[in-house]
Amino acid sequence: MTDPSPTTVLPLQDGDLLAAIDLGSNSFHMVVAQYLLGQLRVIDRLRETIRLAEGLDARGGLSAEARQRAYECLARFGQRIRGIPPQRVRAIATNTVRRLAAPQAFLMPAESALGHAIEVVAGREEARLIYLGVAHAQPSKRDRLRLVLDIGGGSTECIIGSGFEAIERESLQLGCIATTRRFFGDGRITPRRWRDARTEVTAEFQQFAARYRELGWDDAIGTSGTNKAIGDICAAMKLTKGSVLADAIPQVRDRLLQASRIEAIDLPGLSAERRPVIAGGLLVLEAAFDALGLQRMAVSKAALREGVLHDMLERGGDDDPRDASVTALMKRYGTDTAQAERVKGTALRLFDQLAGTWHLDADDRLMLSRAASLHELGLAIAHSHYHVHGAYVIEHSDIAGFSRQQQQFLAALVRTQRRKIPKHVFDALPDRLLPAVRHTSALLRLAVLIHRAHEIDPIPQLDARADGDQLTLTLAHRWFDARPLLKADLESEPDSIAPLGIRLRIDTE
Amino acid sequence: MTDPSPTTVLPLQDGDLLAAIDLGSNSFHMVVAQYLLGQLRVIDRLRETIRLAEGLDARGGLSAEARQRAYECLARFGQRIRGIPPQRVRAIATNTVRRLAAPQAFLMPAESALGHAIEVVAGREEARLIYLGVAHAQPSKRDRLRLVLDIGGGSTECIIGSGFEAIERESLQLGCIATTRRFFGDGRITPRRWRDARTEVTAEFQQFAARYRELGWDDAIGTSGTNKAIGDICAAMKLTKGSVLADAIPQVRDRLLQASRIEAIDLPGLSAERRPVIAGGLLVLEAAFDALGLQRMAVSKAALREGVLHDMLERGGDDDPRDASVTALMKRYGTDTAQAERVKGTALRLFDQLAGTWHLDADDRLMLSRAASLHELGLAIAHSHYHVHGAYVIEHSDIAGFSRQQQQFLAALVRTQRRKIPKHVFDALPDRLLPAVRHTSALLRLAVLIHRAHEIDPIPQLDARADGDQLTLTLAHRWFDARPLLKADLESEPDSIAPLGIRLRIDTE
Repeated sequence: MTDPSPTTVLPLQDGDLLAAIDLGSNSFHMVVAQYLLGQLRVIDRLRETIRLAEGLDARGGLSAEARQRAYECLARFGQRIRGIPPQRVRAIATNTVRRLAAPQAFLMPAESALGHAIEVVAGREEARLIYLGVAHAQPSKRDRLRLVLDIGGGSTECIIGSGFEAIERESLQLGCIATTRRFFGDGRITPRRWRDARTEVTAEFQQFAARYRELGWDDAIGTSGTNKAIGDICAAMKLTKGSVLADAIPQVRDRLLQASRIEAIDLPGLSAERRPVIAGGLLVLEAAFDALGLQRMAVSKAALREGVLHDMLERGGDDDPRDASVTALMKRYGTDTAQAERVKGTALRLFDQLAGTWHLDADDRLMLSRAASLHELGLAIAHSHYHVHGAYVIEHSDIAGFSRQQQQFLAALVRTQRRKIPKHVFDALPDRLLPAVRHTSALLRLAVLIHRAHEIDPIPQLDARADGDQLTLTLAHRWFDARPLLKADLESEPDSIAPLGIRLRIDTE
Repeated sequence: MTDPSPTTVLPLQDGDLLAAIDLGSNSFHMVVAQYLLGQLRVIDRLRETIRLAEGLDARGGLSAEARQRAYECLARFGQRIRGIPPQRVRAIATNTVRRLAAPQAFLMPAESALGHAIEVVAGREEARLIYLGVAHAQPSKRDRLRLVLDIGGGSTECIIGSGFEAIERESLQLGCIATTRRFFGDGRITPRRWRDARTEVTAEFQQFAARYRELGWDDAIGTSGTNKAIGDICAAMKLTKGSVLADAIPQVRDRLLQASRIEAIDLPGLSAERRPVIAGGLLVLEAAFDALGLQRMAVSKAALREGVLHDMLERGGDDDPRDASVTALMKRYGTDTAQAERVKGTALRLFDQLAGTWHLDADDRLMLSRAASLHELGLAIAHSHYHVHGAYVIEHSDIAGFSRQQQQFLAALVRTQRRKIPKHVFDALPDRLLPAVRHTSALLRLAVLIHRAHEIDPIPQLDARADGDQLTLTLAHRWFDARPLLKADLESEPDSIAPLGIRLRIDTE
């Protein structure tokens, strides 16, 4: 009936395996690593070209062919990691899945095929993870600034960071597949089309280029297949030794434009697999060099998946980036930290008594704790409907370290902390999260209710027992009787909480 | 064709008249004052009991009788101020109008009857204005803290302030009419009902009582009809000399409870007009004394309407409270001030050339300037759809100094600054504001577009001419030709801006 009250999500032992899967818009990657003496050693890498973005239509639908390619690949990946427990596997979906009108319809079979949950991350979170991967692959001095440019299939991330920390993170809806389809959809490439397309793409970079140039950087590093392919072409054309130079780009471009159709592109060092998407990739690269005034860019093999691995190591520990994000939000919105601490204390006190019966895990505990920290955030906007405003900010904010589903989980807890629970409030969440959301939501509500009067004194007795979804709360008789407001509130709570599927009973002794 | 580029909204001369109208949930008030040597001298007061809140139903409808009473009263008020120019009249609607499902349906005939625009203010803005009225009526030493409690017909405001500044502002949906209807709707009053009702009402105050008590206050002042009536009863019962004491309340309450029905309430000093709503009023007062631990409260005649008058004096001047609010928002959301200044400069440069033709006034100029200051606010939430997030925050935030319509105006400008203009984006705004919103929205869009690349250099030539809604922008040929991105953007802008009813033409010379 009791829970071991876990404090860390990922207690790793030497020899443990971890895996990161990146469901990119062009290729799917998986990297399997072994944990040894605090370090990660990569022991396996898989990569398949899926071209998920090719199956995306303008209304956010995904072609049956693209789905099929994805599911089959994930089944193969899934077999490789069958023995790894779920908390040591993280699968990340990016731009193409972000753009689906009904992501769950794609994700549910995808999760079944892989045998693990798949998280959708926002563009800037993707940028943070990419940077983390590069930073771990190429450690540099603390005070050196690094620019990282990742041209993916559906989006392009551009980051400036120092050490392991991303300072500026941008994500543009410009990838090698998306851009090729947009400007050269019929397969024809002409110098004039190229010029017009470059103007548009450069404009996207211009939005932040001035800010980036002002901050500056010491090293520029390109990641992802597009950058690697262009580095290879430069080397094969004997323009560089594998890096990308501003002077080399026009020569590669002019050579590319000698073909007037995509299938006729003939570039030294270019693989047949990369050919269909190289035009869009080079276009984005040229625009980035233009807008940012880049002269030279090294190419790194590290990317999102390595970042995801390292992020897993930090999660749940003292350096969990999500803790820093929650603290930053509390600060920005001027949250009453004392009240947040009281509510958090009570919520976790209830959680620790019920986690066993309700099969809640350490991740759920972290979510409840973070929702408690942030529950009053919306007060900075307005008092009335503050739970709605708080949920809006949490759902839409670009919060480092969280996936979209985790933000929706947090937002749902903050949204349902008081007042009526709306019917469709959990609709956006994947089914697998629903039991945990329902249960933690009930605990946050009770904690918020108990602390409504902002009393400073601790609550003497607070025993929680559950028999399935029948929850009994036992309070100290004398203490409870002296609190008519709490009594009145708890009297109506069983009705209010019923939509969560919880039957609440209050006892005193 | 040109505009005098006004810098202040209210240039007052000695002898000028000003009027403030308060469309309260219980009574409508009007105060007319004369400006003399920087001071206001009240020269007329009107008050009518309308009981607007009585006509409110649960779905946000308003009875025909209540409407009729309101319109007739406003027509009488309107006659009194017929000679006063619109910028020196401010009419404020509060809780009952806030709760209407279709406020415009009530406001349009109301504005016609009064002959002036009517602003709806949020609860905490109402609180700020009430405090301003009391602070001006009873100046006190700078470092003394003052608690002000205003029990209206539909809501109760509770403020702590120092000097002229409100430090804490709360507004509860508890007024003398609303509370009487909620707990004694059938006309019966019993000690048991009273006790249950007090528990609920006290709980509302408990939400902020601890915070208020911690901050503390030196003087407590009650305003509004309820407080005055209870002060009068205390005096008539010889319990006090007109103030309200904690010890006196139980005696008044017990005397009130001797009647078991509202129409039988018999309290010394109580007017027949006040009798139907005194039960709810006393209930709120007793709960406030309980929750806040109040011992003694003086009664002041000053209230919202006096606050509105003094607020008018400050608007447009150096102490405009709205400027402080905009600055505070920019700070909280970490706005790039340099970019905001550039966009504001260009937007106002266009405005000053077009204000004459488009009949835009100094208020519109202020709105455009503030929207420019805040246009990137949503970036603090996320880059994608930042204009949507910014509009959300501005619409829902509790921003001191702004009425609801003004916040909606600002939010609409921020929402339409880029991308597609949604069809119904202006629906919540009163029709009278639409021409100004359309025109200022077009100017903000153009300024945002022109500064998209975040260039630091000033724009050399920027001539704007309008012939009705045909807008021609003339730029320096050489400068424009060197900016292919701007060119590309401006090429598609005539189509994008068309929903605003503006036909845009770009010229160079």
